[in-house]
Amino acid sequence: MARPGDYDAIAAVADDWWGRPILASLPRLFLDHFHRTSYIVDGDGGPEAFLIGILSPSQPGHAYIHFVGVAPHARKLGYGRALYEEFFRLARADGRTFVSAITGPVNLRSASFHQAMGFTVTGPVAGFNGPGHDMLVFGR
Amino acid sequence: MARPGDYDAIAAVADDWWGRPILASLPRLFLDHFHRTSYIVDGDGGPEAFLIGILSPSQPGHAYIHFVGVAPHARKLGYGRALYEEFFRLARADGRTFVSAITGPVNLRSASFHQAMGFTVTGPVAGFNGPGHDMLVFGR
Repeated sequence: MARPGDYDAIAAVADDWWGRPILASLPRLFLDHFHRTSYIVDGDGGPEAFLIGILSPSQPGHAYIHFVGVAPHARKLGYGRALYEEFFRLARADGRTFVSAITGPVNLRSASFHQAMGFTVTGPVAGFNGPGHDMLVFGR
Repeated sequence: MARPGDYDAIAAVADDWWGRPILASLPRLFLDHFHRTSYIVDGDGGPEAFLIGILSPSQPGHAYIHFVGVAPHARKLGYGRALYEEFFRLARADGRTFVSAITGPVNLRSASFHQAMGFTVTGPVAGFNGPGHDMLVFGR
């Protein structure tokens, strides 16, 4: 389980890990209010991987993965899969039967990862996050 | 109570209402997963006001207001205050004793509004939403 204070370490590396500016999509509120359904893997030099998850308060059967990130030097080690499986266990234990996630259409690595994890890919969905913000939508 | 489908109408006007690009802070997930704790006031030509609220799943006594917006033509009519009071009732009924919100340091109208609503203002807090993203923090 993550803690609210993990936010600063994550925010410091997020743009680098994604290779583009994504910090606007990752405000502190996600750690403040969802740390109990989020995970962080700490390494010697800071975080190596993290997952921000939400058990939807308004859609009882649904869970949502907002972000998963793995440090460039720690990729291909299985952190992404391990964090998803940990979150799936948590979601199942809370009676959640559907897990969704999204990504930008440019993020082909993310699309492949979600397909390998058993997600169905929909889209790009035009204007999913407002005019001009098309997104790929994953459901499992 | 808002519905998930209200997202598109809100996303279409948000940047105009704020007078700056804020859509990146308002992805669809907030309506999908928090519509039961959010409100929208519909007018003849679309939404006139909305509030996106969260009863924090990880901090039991806390509630968080992510966004409140009022159409430029509908300001000074009391929508902002009415939506906050509606959310305060909901939060109290769920045992929440602390409500927080944030805004960018440039948003002086928001700071005055929150002070008038009984919030304490802290900051600008340097790097609140990551490096370079200072924010004013409100608590009540």
